[in-house]
Amino acid sequence: MQLPPADIGTPVDDIDTPALVVDLDAFERNLAKMAKLARDAGVRMRPHAKTHKSTSVALQQIAHGAVGQCVQKVGEAEVLVAGGVRDVLVSNEVFGQQKFNRLAALGQRARMAVCFDSPEQVAQASKAAKDYGVTLGGLVEIEIGMQRCGVMPGAPAIELARRIAEAPGLEFRGIQAYHGTAQHMPTHAERVAAIRQAGEAVRQTRDGLAKIGLACEIVGGAGSGTFRQEAASGLWNELQVGSYAFMDTDYASIGDEKGGNRYTEFEHSLFVLATIMSAPAADRVVVDAGLKSYSMEKGPPWVHGRAGLEPYGVSDEHARVRVLKGTSTPKLGEKLMLIPGHCDPTINLHDWYVGIRRGRVEALWPISARGASR
Amino acid sequence: MQLPPADIGTPVDDIDTPALVVDLDAFERNLAKMAKLARDAGVRMRPHAKTHKSTSVALQQIAHGAVGQCVQKVGEAEVLVAGGVRDVLVSNEVFGQQKFNRLAALGQRARMAVCFDSPEQVAQASKAAKDYGVTLGGLVEIEIGMQRCGVMPGAPAIELARRIAEAPGLEFRGIQAYHGTAQHMPTHAERVAAIRQAGEAVRQTRDGLAKIGLACEIVGGAGSGTFRQEAASGLWNELQVGSYAFMDTDYASIGDEKGGNRYTEFEHSLFVLATIMSAPAADRVVVDAGLKSYSMEKGPPWVHGRAGLEPYGVSDEHARVRVLKGTSTPKLGEKLMLIPGHCDPTINLHDWYVGIRRGRVEALWPISARGASR
Repeated sequence: MQLPPADIGTPVDDIDTPALVVDLDAFERNLAKMAKLARDAGVRMRPHAKTHKSTSVALQQIAHGAVGQCVQKVGEAEVLVAGGVRDVLVSNEVFGQQKFNRLAALGQRARMAVCFDSPEQVAQASKAAKDYGVTLGGLVEIEIGMQRCGVMPGAPAIELARRIAEAPGLEFRGIQAYHGTAQHMPTHAERVAAIRQAGEAVRQTRDGLAKIGLACEIVGGAGSGTFRQEAASGLWNELQVGSYAFMDTDYASIGDEKGGNRYTEFEHSLFVLATIMSAPAADRVVVDAGLKSYSMEKGPPWVHGRAGLEPYGVSDEHARVRVLKGTSTPKLGEKLMLIPGHCDPTINLHDWYVGIRRGRVEALWPISARGASR
Repeated sequence: MQLPPADIGTPVDDIDTPALVVDLDAFERNLAKMAKLARDAGVRMRPHAKTHKSTSVALQQIAHGAVGQCVQKVGEAEVLVAGGVRDVLVSNEVFGQQKFNRLAALGQRARMAVCFDSPEQVAQASKAAKDYGVTLGGLVEIEIGMQRCGVMPGAPAIELARRIAEAPGLEFRGIQAYHGTAQHMPTHAERVAAIRQAGEAVRQTRDGLAKIGLACEIVGGAGSGTFRQEAASGLWNELQVGSYAFMDTDYASIGDEKGGNRYTEFEHSLFVLATIMSAPAADRVVVDAGLKSYSMEKGPPWVHGRAGLEPYGVSDEHARVRVLKGTSTPKLGEKLMLIPGHCDPTINLHDWYVGIRRGRVEALWPISARGASR
């Protein structure tokens, strides 16, 4: 783990770079807005820790009313439970006795659940739960259009759910129905249609489960691009949103409800602060933040609040910035706030959130589950 | 920092996943081969630590005859010097008094050098060197076609070199001439032409410096895609190669000397070991390694030693794998060795190298400079 790039009270201009900076006002507005939306819709919030990788953020979401957290990996769950989170859902499958043993060990200290899409996983989880003397919650994941994991809705899902319900040490807890692809569909209309179709699969499965006496405490899913659809469906009851707290250029680039091409439901609160350490030409400067400071699979970052500057040609630890015609060339030593293409893998590169407000550092939060991919 | 995914002696099949695995035989052959190529060409090796981010690897390269290490960041230099490396070149510019102070502090324990492309940086470095009572080496970086940092060759470079030579606390040490773009040009002929052209700029600058009495102890540059050209040029005398130790799909995809489309100068020694944790369809399985286990800006990884399996649709912590027609579907729990698209940012996601030989874990090396981007 690296040392933090600032102290509490450091002026923003003196933060060492590159640094992962959070605008605390914007971040807190995002948290409050989503919490209210969920409350108003009558659904629970279970935000996704794969985005923030930090107990510090998880506990703030819980303070805003979230029932717990989602994770993708057992390692993330271990960090959260050690940090005081008491209700964690692994919103994907895991495989291997040791992984389930680790989950069961956490079951001594927190309410744990995990998703299944095969009988082998159910058998491993049941063995672990018995060995550790705990109850593990089990959700059946159904395929609703994302084509990643999950069994088919209806009969196959009901058969697997029955197996979960009957397995010693396991408790059937509901349906995992996450449509990741839908979050990033370019138009609002496409996203609405995708979730409507997914809803039919959820309804069919839920109703089939009810017929054999299996109630769904949790019908989980939704992300920051579609959560209004799931929340209004009358089907999903837990939102697994993550990016809403921070946002990124990928989310900002999907269409809005009115047919526009900028999605502004939440504010950009996350930035990579970078310094211009070389200014070799009038139309080109170089910053000290590259592939190891932000994830690039969604393209180069945007420069926040500065028109006419376009990052390109990103290297391991640096990036060129094009200075468009009519824009004055930034000077050596100037700092830029970069908006990353994809917040989740960007956060996972850093060891500290540097929370800023009114021009100075107010908070340093360790990214305690950084690298917790096992 | 995460716990290691295995113990010494753990069978490869029992390594927890995802894990960053190094085939020690292939890795050692790569190290020895490059060391011999440099020796035979009469040039020095100064491998780049931005690739490996680890004192453990640096010291092995030095044991193979390397004179020291390159880094991109002061933070990387701090880790290497603390770990016993005694000669470090920051092969890029830095800016800010605090960054130069940190370099000067290292100057008490190691021979340090840094690159310049502006008088402001020279003034900051000189001030730091005087304050700490050390001598910092200075290289002038010249623009040779990469269009990132660097002053123009010839007169501008000579003027800046003179300024470095005259600055108290600094010692002029040579020319930085790295052509990063050339490393990845698709054909061998293009790479040869790019380095030939770059060589003219180096020659002109070197000869001009000689006329004012400035000798170049170091003419540094070259990467794993073009090092034979620089080594044979009679101009460059230090190779800053990095990827050769590990390789990746991006390097493997450039053309070879004979006009073929696979570059096989070095062996793939680096893999992300992943487990199939969901097998929902005959033509699709899902592995437990995604964007947070390998860098994706060069595309999805390849599956090592298994034809007919193609990773696609990579998520934060998982990836789908397409099972092509005629290929039998891998089973739940099977492990795959993924070859990352780009080794440097992939390594920077992990805390441990897991060195394997003859089917078991033989070494665990901390990636001690992971995240050291400041």
